[in-house]
Amino acid sequence: MAKRAHHTLLLLCTMALLLLTVVSPSTGLSLDTVRDFLTREEDTIVFSLIERAKYPLNRPAYDPVHFGAGAGQRLNASFAELFIRESEAVQSKSGRYQSLQEIPFFAHRVPFALAPPYNFTRELYLAAASVNVNDAIWSMYFSELLPVLTKNGDDGNYAVTVDSDLACLQALSRRINYGRYVAEVKFRDDQQTYTSLIQAKDRDALMKLLTSEAQEDVVKKRVEKKAIVFGQNVTLDGPIETGVNNTNQANFKIDPSVVYKLYDQWVIPLTKEVEVEYLLHRLD
Amino acid sequence: MAKRAHHTLLLLCTMALLLLTVVSPSTGLSLDTVRDFLTREEDTIVFSLIERAKYPLNRPAYDPVHFGAGAGQRLNASFAELFIRESEAVQSKSGRYQSLQEIPFFAHRVPFALAPPYNFTRELYLAAASVNVNDAIWSMYFSELLPVLTKNGDDGNYAVTVDSDLACLQALSRRINYGRYVAEVKFRDDQQTYTSLIQAKDRDALMKLLTSEAQEDVVKKRVEKKAIVFGQNVTLDGPIETGVNNTNQANFKIDPSVVYKLYDQWVIPLTKEVEVEYLLHRLD
Repeated sequence: MAKRAHHTLLLLCTMALLLLTVVSPSTGLSLDTVRDFLTREEDTIVFSLIERAKYPLNRPAYDPVHFGAGAGQRLNASFAELFIRESEAVQSKSGRYQSLQEIPFFAHRVPFALAPPYNFTRELYLAAASVNVNDAIWSMYFSELLPVLTKNGDDGNYAVTVDSDLACLQALSRRINYGRYVAEVKFRDDQQTYTSLIQAKDRDALMKLLTSEAQEDVVKKRVEKKAIVFGQNVTLDGPIETGVNNTNQANFKIDPSVVYKLYDQWVIPLTKEVEVEYLLHRLD
Repeated sequence: MAKRAHHTLLLLCTMALLLLTVVSPSTGLSLDTVRDFLTREEDTIVFSLIERAKYPLNRPAYDPVHFGAGAGQRLNASFAELFIRESEAVQSKSGRYQSLQEIPFFAHRVPFALAPPYNFTRELYLAAASVNVNDAIWSMYFSELLPVLTKNGDDGNYAVTVDSDLACLQALSRRINYGRYVAEVKFRDDQQTYTSLIQAKDRDALMKLLTSEAQEDVVKKRVEKKAIVFGQNVTLDGPIETGVNNTNQANFKIDPSVVYKLYDQWVIPLTKEVEVEYLLHRLD
């Protein structure tokens, strides 16, 4: 009886929160804050890639069918997938996905039982807020990026390895799906133009409007430089102003051109895909 | 019946593995590999601190008593502790602690049900291998380091925040408890001297023998420099050789002197404590 009353209360609170979300005006989102966020996320992405590259490929962690330690126990999913599912379940229970900036790779409907409550301001248009390309990020990461990021080999550190995969995936997901915030800001800045293109469902024109090749070029060169600066072996030789002692590529922890390519071929195009999808739902 | 047979088999395998461990000679451990490991871990520690500092302190995550989202649900542990316990349980199940390099903050006796099997070579003396100072690291991290590492504030991102605490704690734990490997190498290099000091239980003499102030000084200055290089805001201005564009401290993501102090007051002393403890059990 007390339990039912408790559930009703919880439901009411949730509804009130949702209502508040729809009614309350969004604040704090501007082209500057959005750009600052994306620039800061570059560091997170580069750090996470460098950390993943500490370990060799560790292929057994990714076999789509593998045998657990209890031998004979055949599991129809890779160790990586099982690990990420279980980790995301803990994080979901802990309220990670209360923030719309975070989107899980596997849907979780766990009520957040652990987390202290917090009333997030919602800056996105609700009907479009769930737009994401996590499936594309997942497959790009494992099929395209990992093989060029890591050295071949197997050191058995599967849990630590896959934990660092998860850190990379979360950073990439946050950055790429942040396209929703970018699109929201751009929409608000020029509602008239966007509204007519959205009503005409003109994907190509939207994509063109969202594209700034000069800006994209700056971003790609900057992340490549970050890979150089953060991936160097820092020693006490040389003045402290000189961050890069040696630009010989063999001395870097990850290949800077891989990071350039990651942004050129996947991060930027996928972000724009998110932007277009978000806009197409912006008037729903 | 089949289940019991299965358990017996598992037990036998575990025993065989342990036996193999005791018998097989350790390889690959030298003063050079140990030093390389420790130097590389510095980068991991600095990255993890920079990532934690992205978020404000978020104090409600650390309240020793807090109320879960289900309101009225009083929990006698901080959110941080609950989150880390649950995350470690997943990692334990995934075999993370099969590698002696990793030590959980909360003991877990979960059999690793997810992980593909791997036969680790054990480089430590088994009777001393479980020596660790995780309790000291835990309390130092939350009481001393967090308040000076983060800005005051509360953005509600408790799960992401505490997830990045866990990354810091794991990096610090791996680095500090690696003192066991350092001690093992030093012991093997000079068995006679160490054996007599261990038999005499002469902690002070052991500590003195393990201390190299010149080397410690290099390490402290190097991690401070890493905090500068990795914590700067990288821009495309200036030549690529110049990693640090601006040594104005306000531009760094974390205060480099905090990292110096972290190593000076905690990482190095705690590592030596681990070394001494390990040695005192090296002849058990």
